[in-house]
Amino acid sequence: MNISIIIYLLGWILNIVASLMVFPFAVSIYYGEATGKYFLICGVIMAAIGFALTRKRPKNSKFYAKEGFVITALSWLLLSITGCLPFYFSGEIPSFTNALFECISGFTTTGASILSDVEAMSRCMMFWRCFIQLIGGMGVLVFLLALIPFTTSGQNIYLMKAESPGPDVGKLVPKVQKTAYYLYVIYFALTFLEIVSLVIAGAPLYDAVCTSFTTTSTGGFGVRNTSLGGYSPAVQYVVTVFLYLSGLNYSFFFLFFTKRIKEALSMEEIRLYTGIFFGSIAIIAIDIIRHCGYSLEEGVRHAAFQVGSIMTTAGFTTANYDGWPALSASILVLLMFVGGCAGSTCGGLKVSRILIYLKTVKKELAQLCHPRNVKIIKIDGKPLAHNTLRTANIFFIVYILLFAVSVLLVSLDEHDLVTNFTAVASALGNIGPGLSLVGPVGNFDLFSDLSKYVLMFDMLAGRLEIFPMLVLLNPATWKRN
Amino acid sequence: MNISIIIYLLGWILNIVASLMVFPFAVSIYYGEATGKYFLICGVIMAAIGFALTRKRPKNSKFYAKEGFVITALSWLLLSITGCLPFYFSGEIPSFTNALFECISGFTTTGASILSDVEAMSRCMMFWRCFIQLIGGMGVLVFLLALIPFTTSGQNIYLMKAESPGPDVGKLVPKVQKTAYYLYVIYFALTFLEIVSLVIAGAPLYDAVCTSFTTTSTGGFGVRNTSLGGYSPAVQYVVTVFLYLSGLNYSFFFLFFTKRIKEALSMEEIRLYTGIFFGSIAIIAIDIIRHCGYSLEEGVRHAAFQVGSIMTTAGFTTANYDGWPALSASILVLLMFVGGCAGSTCGGLKVSRILIYLKTVKKELAQLCHPRNVKIIKIDGKPLAHNTLRTANIFFIVYILLFAVSVLLVSLDEHDLVTNFTAVASALGNIGPGLSLVGPVGNFDLFSDLSKYVLMFDMLAGRLEIFPMLVLLNPATWKRN
Repeated sequence: MNISIIIYLLGWILNIVASLMVFPFAVSIYYGEATGKYFLICGVIMAAIGFALTRKRPKNSKFYAKEGFVITALSWLLLSITGCLPFYFSGEIPSFTNALFECISGFTTTGASILSDVEAMSRCMMFWRCFIQLIGGMGVLVFLLALIPFTTSGQNIYLMKAESPGPDVGKLVPKVQKTAYYLYVIYFALTFLEIVSLVIAGAPLYDAVCTSFTTTSTGGFGVRNTSLGGYSPAVQYVVTVFLYLSGLNYSFFFLFFTKRIKEALSMEEIRLYTGIFFGSIAIIAIDIIRHCGYSLEEGVRHAAFQVGSIMTTAGFTTANYDGWPALSASILVLLMFVGGCAGSTCGGLKVSRILIYLKTVKKELAQLCHPRNVKIIKIDGKPLAHNTLRTANIFFIVYILLFAVSVLLVSLDEHDLVTNFTAVASALGNIGPGLSLVGPVGNFDLFSDLSKYVLMFDMLAGRLEIFPMLVLLNPATWKRN
Repeated sequence: MNISIIIYLLGWILNIVASLMVFPFAVSIYYGEATGKYFLICGVIMAAIGFALTRKRPKNSKFYAKEGFVITALSWLLLSITGCLPFYFSGEIPSFTNALFECISGFTTTGASILSDVEAMSRCMMFWRCFIQLIGGMGVLVFLLALIPFTTSGQNIYLMKAESPGPDVGKLVPKVQKTAYYLYVIYFALTFLEIVSLVIAGAPLYDAVCTSFTTTSTGGFGVRNTSLGGYSPAVQYVVTVFLYLSGLNYSFFFLFFTKRIKEALSMEEIRLYTGIFFGSIAIIAIDIIRHCGYSLEEGVRHAAFQVGSIMTTAGFTTANYDGWPALSASILVLLMFVGGCAGSTCGGLKVSRILIYLKTVKKELAQLCHPRNVKIIKIDGKPLAHNTLRTANIFFIVYILLFAVSVLLVSLDEHDLVTNFTAVASALGNIGPGLSLVGPVGNFDLFSDLSKYVLMFDMLAGRLEIFPMLVLLNPATWKRN
């Protein structure tokens, strides 16, 4: 284990958090809020420590897969712990556990909150809460890769692999660095476009900026207690469209803008994602129009918004879907597990894995009947590597096992089954709200500290696709070879 | 596809059902019940058709994996359809859908019922209801294999594979036929021992016989409306012990009685099964004693009985666990997915698969850190074949996918989420009751016909470990090569 490179990179994480805190500090100056000073104090301290740690590059800067996982897991823990300090020191979230929960929920783009009154927060703290979702969405290490060529290129892939969602890291271009750069360009362009669209649709600028940060990151933190429920239908439609776009594999945009439109439109993952997306909207719209007394427009709007929000694992709401009929509720629960496309900012299992699972089952059926005809699973015409298949299968198992263990631990609080199951599904899928007590009108403060830490672990595990967190906790990782 | 051998074997299934109907007919004579005539009529008709179909052995009696799956799936459908006729014609279950549901629930050893008043049934019908669980528990084709050497030995394994639960068919002895014979000897010995124990514990003989049929088959049909709730603690303890024994891998008994006791006790699956079994009892006992006002003895007894009943996927009850606290309820729901050991009469994923999954995750963690150190997964010291691993992983995925699709279809009835989720989990795991509306005091008659057929499919799929049913429905199976 190359400890010195780990410490060096963690130093860089501190530098990044410190420089990010300049933004909420600027917001506090604009709005004349005294509470902004906590960003200055925290930022300066972190920058000092970060500067000390990164002053000298370690001689041996080589690292491998194991270090890649450990660096990623520790970076995210460090991000969360340092990022929550302004919430805690300012007293806006008086309990450290709650401040940490809110911050992990932010960075992992979950959007589950322990706050019952979001609107009571100062403007700069609320901005920070949304801003960390923007940062967490695309990933901090990917950001680092895009900016600083601090390691040799062959190693960067370990960090990108450990931090990026999906069964296989799709490099847009051969160089990892360049890929990271393009990803960020697309990401910021989407965010900027949404800000403009929301302002045109009539949202106040502050709301437009914060909401866009948490849409394209599929984070789901809102700046109002009613999430997106209080805004005009126009604003809700704009957010729905950007939710759909944010759930797409970023390779799609890359292909699209490099004029390989046909290739982009024929991506199997995009087609399945779009099919599930609009299929779910259609069924839910019919179901809620029939049973909940919505008009046609309301039914379609609320169905589209909630499907978009839950499938992309953002977690905004415009309606209290906890009261929706069982069919709609079941679809939403299952979408929590599906998630958006790989190579997006979404959580969940990812559509590409669902595609792999469906193809695996089909292949298995064929092979059972004709054991000697060995078929190969292809996606977009390309055969899938055996390793990708194996890890996709194992990921499913780990996901469900972690889900089961977490449900048991959270059940110690003795809330009802639907609360426990959907709270865990929501945390692990980085969604935000669940059903029953953690539904759209509830929040996560009702859980005990133990349950909150279990859910924090699940949020981090869900964001990093579980293995980095397990590698970090595995005693074997820390044994000397 | 060798159609003639399929028809020939289905003829044998008719012969078997016809001869099995002699037993309830005898019961009806003993109790002087006129309704027993339906067994005679149905039996004679089936025997006639069966005789005609099996009169001539097809010239080409060769078949392969594909036919093995198709024969198994069709056999079970035929068993269910013919087995339900006495219920239907006698008018004791007036709806054909309900009669079929009850019969599939019987043969698959699920134990889910559409009857609200079991005690209103005649003695012979009630006997038939329990007797078909005994037949379904070990498997009809395995029974056929044990009795009749009608195909060449190399092919029998296809039938045994398709009908037997578990990730890998554990042959006790090299010959399939001999293995089937030993399995039945152990099975009947266990059943007989339970009958004797129950009578000693004070149960009436009729109840002892029926309850033993449905314990060792882990079926769970009872002869009273309160399931096992109305019997003395002694009877409940006896059933608990036999539930535990019935959940063991039958290889354990075989090793035990061939004096390889050390080998038997060191089986990893047995150890994990026992660990989960008693661990769950301990946690639930503490939970319900604390929250439900049970005495120490009551708490332990009800916890042990319900864990035994649900983990072995029998589905008896002695207490309305629907009112138990969330921790206990969550453990029971998760046990529904775990099930008993492979090579037992239990449903669910099976403990040996859980063992494989845990080892797979452990191996994956090690391999992620040291990609070049390829480790091999071993169970009981023997390396697992790549194929066993692959199919175990795929089975998990198919299981959860089928679960998800079924929940969606059942949700069309618009009952609550807990009802829908646990009804499907229960049907797929061959358990019986679920929670909420299908809890210990409810029954499955509240579902629409569509939902009932979905659940029937799930019960058959659960019993046959899904693939035979999928192969049957796969259009590719029926294409000419």
